[in-house]
Amino acid sequence: MNGAQSLIRTLVDHGVDTCFMNPGTSEMHFVAALDDVTAMHSVLALFEGVATGGADGYARMAGRPAATLLHLGPGLGNGLANLHNARRAASPVVNIVGDHAISHRPFDAQLQSDIETVARNVSTFVRTSESTSDLGADAVAALAAAAGPPGSVATLILPADVSWSEGGAVVPAGGEAPPVGAVPDPDRQEAVAKALRSGQPAAFLIGGRACLGPALDVVADMAAATGAKLLAETFPARLERGAGRPVVERLAYLAEFTAMQLEGIRHLVLVDARPPVSFFAYPGKASDLVPDGCIVHRLVGAADDMGAAVEGLADLLGTKQGSAPRQQSGPPDLPTGPLTAQTVCQALGALLPEGAIVSDEGNTSGLFAPGATAGAPPHDWLCLTGGAIGQGLPVAVGAAVAAPGRRVVALEADGSALYTLQAWWTMAREGLDVTTVLLNNHSYAVLNMELDRVGVESPGPRARDMLDLGRPSIDFVDLARGLGLQAARAETAEDFADELARALATPGPSVVEAVIPSLL
Amino acid sequence: MNGAQSLIRTLVDHGVDTCFMNPGTSEMHFVAALDDVTAMHSVLALFEGVATGGADGYARMAGRPAATLLHLGPGLGNGLANLHNARRAASPVVNIVGDHAISHRPFDAQLQSDIETVARNVSTFVRTSESTSDLGADAVAALAAAAGPPGSVATLILPADVSWSEGGAVVPAGGEAPPVGAVPDPDRQEAVAKALRSGQPAAFLIGGRACLGPALDVVADMAAATGAKLLAETFPARLERGAGRPVVERLAYLAEFTAMQLEGIRHLVLVDARPPVSFFAYPGKASDLVPDGCIVHRLVGAADDMGAAVEGLADLLGTKQGSAPRQQSGPPDLPTGPLTAQTVCQALGALLPEGAIVSDEGNTSGLFAPGATAGAPPHDWLCLTGGAIGQGLPVAVGAAVAAPGRRVVALEADGSALYTLQAWWTMAREGLDVTTVLLNNHSYAVLNMELDRVGVESPGPRARDMLDLGRPSIDFVDLARGLGLQAARAETAEDFADELARALATPGPSVVEAVIPSLL
Repeated sequence: MNGAQSLIRTLVDHGVDTCFMNPGTSEMHFVAALDDVTAMHSVLALFEGVATGGADGYARMAGRPAATLLHLGPGLGNGLANLHNARRAASPVVNIVGDHAISHRPFDAQLQSDIETVARNVSTFVRTSESTSDLGADAVAALAAAAGPPGSVATLILPADVSWSEGGAVVPAGGEAPPVGAVPDPDRQEAVAKALRSGQPAAFLIGGRACLGPALDVVADMAAATGAKLLAETFPARLERGAGRPVVERLAYLAEFTAMQLEGIRHLVLVDARPPVSFFAYPGKASDLVPDGCIVHRLVGAADDMGAAVEGLADLLGTKQGSAPRQQSGPPDLPTGPLTAQTVCQALGALLPEGAIVSDEGNTSGLFAPGATAGAPPHDWLCLTGGAIGQGLPVAVGAAVAAPGRRVVALEADGSALYTLQAWWTMAREGLDVTTVLLNNHSYAVLNMELDRVGVESPGPRARDMLDLGRPSIDFVDLARGLGLQAARAETAEDFADELARALATPGPSVVEAVIPSLL
Repeated sequence: MNGAQSLIRTLVDHGVDTCFMNPGTSEMHFVAALDDVTAMHSVLALFEGVATGGADGYARMAGRPAATLLHLGPGLGNGLANLHNARRAASPVVNIVGDHAISHRPFDAQLQSDIETVARNVSTFVRTSESTSDLGADAVAALAAAAGPPGSVATLILPADVSWSEGGAVVPAGGEAPPVGAVPDPDRQEAVAKALRSGQPAAFLIGGRACLGPALDVVADMAAATGAKLLAETFPARLERGAGRPVVERLAYLAEFTAMQLEGIRHLVLVDARPPVSFFAYPGKASDLVPDGCIVHRLVGAADDMGAAVEGLADLLGTKQGSAPRQQSGPPDLPTGPLTAQTVCQALGALLPEGAIVSDEGNTSGLFAPGATAGAPPHDWLCLTGGAIGQGLPVAVGAAVAAPGRRVVALEADGSALYTLQAWWTMAREGLDVTTVLLNNHSYAVLNMELDRVGVESPGPRARDMLDLGRPSIDFVDLARGLGLQAARAETAEDFADELARALATPGPSVVEAVIPSLL
């Protein structure tokens, strides 16, 4: 058994059976081994950012890591932005980065670079596997590092000769239960309970693992029982929402609005969330958004046992299960009239099917989407966790691979789409049930707002030109067809609703381009 | 004057008047300052790899650096692959990477990451500018580092508050002559002269600055005078060639062929080139391609004074100027019949206009291009210096910006094009005279060959599927139109020649897709 075979067998044995890849010469033995280990599902991407974003989306929905296969330092570089987003999502991801053979290193061939340095920026684990016999164990170490909590990016660098040499050994899974994290500190729990019972205005701020599953329900019940607000971080990795689910208010992107949401709060209880900070700094404005006089309580950190902590606190509080208000069912009516950011979101709310997964990179044009879909059937909402645009379509790919049978909607802005548009081809190749709603306002619209917010008074024409995507106009229907997808363009609300309904009802991927005016 | 204004004024005063950019919020003051300093030409890209590859292509043709403007760590990450290629090309590039305000750093906001670590991989200079008053001087330091020789990538990280604060100071250019590099060692020159006079088989291996201008002529004359072979590195950054220029044979990509080219050579004289090594390692094959018993002479290193070294050696040898054989004019006939990699290249050779610049990322399908264009009118040939695919279209953008009035031909393979296809939009936006010849063989064809070369016997269907770009088929005419370009598809040699002739004669960018069978 060569190294590559032992690596793939080890990964599969540990439950990593999906690999998003863009391989090159140094990864050819890994690719060849796919015929030996057919349990590994390999998903080809045309660009590494699709592979890494795919692994992120997969982890968010599957709750376990996928692997990526990347080609040396430049391939890792191309995948770095979406690994940044994965890091911020606490998604477990295992990168396999091919490298030159160890024997080839002294010659500094053209593609050689310092892969470990590039990897370090996003990875909690970086190791170059130096021998075929140790490769299986190295993979297990990478998996352990990635698993968390918190889930993280682990990068295993695989020299070509370590991959091609004989002497590989599978390291089987031991059958241990996955780690759940550090046990909660009873004193901290008591302090939180006391704060919540104090009668002072309080809020839970949930993030990460608290935005789904039993933890979300328990925290919502506690909020209802104590009168605390239930807030979520601005961009959760995955938020379970829709009819019948707890009502959660996300913190706004704009610090000015966040300040209003947090006004008067005296106790902020963090549940796998970080204290609220402004996304960017602005002259004369605060970065730290915790109100003056508010005490921050870290109930559950990223490395802590979520279940034990929230259930422990609920016991202390004597919270009754199921007491939280639930979102009423109530999709909006289908929109009519001009197509705008608002009517697009209204149509989405009216048509979103049960079990849908929304990968939200709608940016300014998607502003109305959370409100419009609040009463839609239960669904998952995946956000731009790290702010590195170009995440939405790759995350949609990964989510669809992880959750076959569920409809994925990529709510995608024009500017963001163009970083990783190659994701569309992978959707077509894999026959994924992804409907892309492409919000085309011909602009980096958010930057028009940001120009003003950073204090640029009356920006000139040369500055405005750098935010303009309309010269030439980009035709996303052509682009989608070029990459092998069905596509249609809508210019009225009725058209859009018709096209969206058709797309949602049709197996496989398609694109509906919504030509809309910019909000800004 | 704020920091951004002082930075741009300083750059312009030092001759950096072009900036390839994909800005975000933290770069908005730089963008706003474009209206204050209109001498800075700002070129918008939809993806950072286009910006960094654009700066590389610009430097290759202009001989001086452009700036890039990138958005934090993820933006730099997206630009990393083409910065790797720029590093291997010894292209001077000055990256300006926006960062959060210094005051914002303690809060670890979503987009924060360790930018310096990412930059280090490709940069000889990395500095975070910590004060507005020092920013001009920091820019001058970055420029000095980039200028070389050897030219290199310098990265200046610009916190938003350093950019927006008042107190910037322009650091004017001092009028010094640009550095030329270290003076040659007379003993080394004597040793090379002796070797060349020894009567033993010898070869010059030229790279970098030796592939163009007076240095190329002088080395060619010396080769002719001494009977030495004249070889160039496999992927020169810029090779001046065509009718009337010295005849230079490039080393082959395949080590097996390189071994034939170097067979029997006893003295290999490196002129701004590195000793030949295999591009990748292969089981049981050599990485070092210097023949046994061959002595390697480093006449000119990357940091040395090229002119002094080659002219000094020519004096020692008493070489007569203009004695080297020159390429005869003789473009091939227009092709007829089926469209293949060979007939595409034949048409290119027949139609290539004088002064053309070819950005060559044709990969396997471009194999015949150097031969077919050898007798074409004088032109420049820009290669994939670092092996990180996705370079060709961005380099074409930069070359066209640097050399208005010259026709740029991007000879581009389908797989490679899809990493940085966003370059097409920038070509359209800027009205650049770039003709893309898109070689569509529906495959990562080179990997079919590499699978075999790395020793995979009879790869299975799952492996082969990872190299297949035909499922679904990609339509580059649709893609080009979607990004605002004229485009046509050719399926016979006659069609292709017609379309290529039309494209070359039409101002502005266009795309000719050549649907061809894979060579492999």
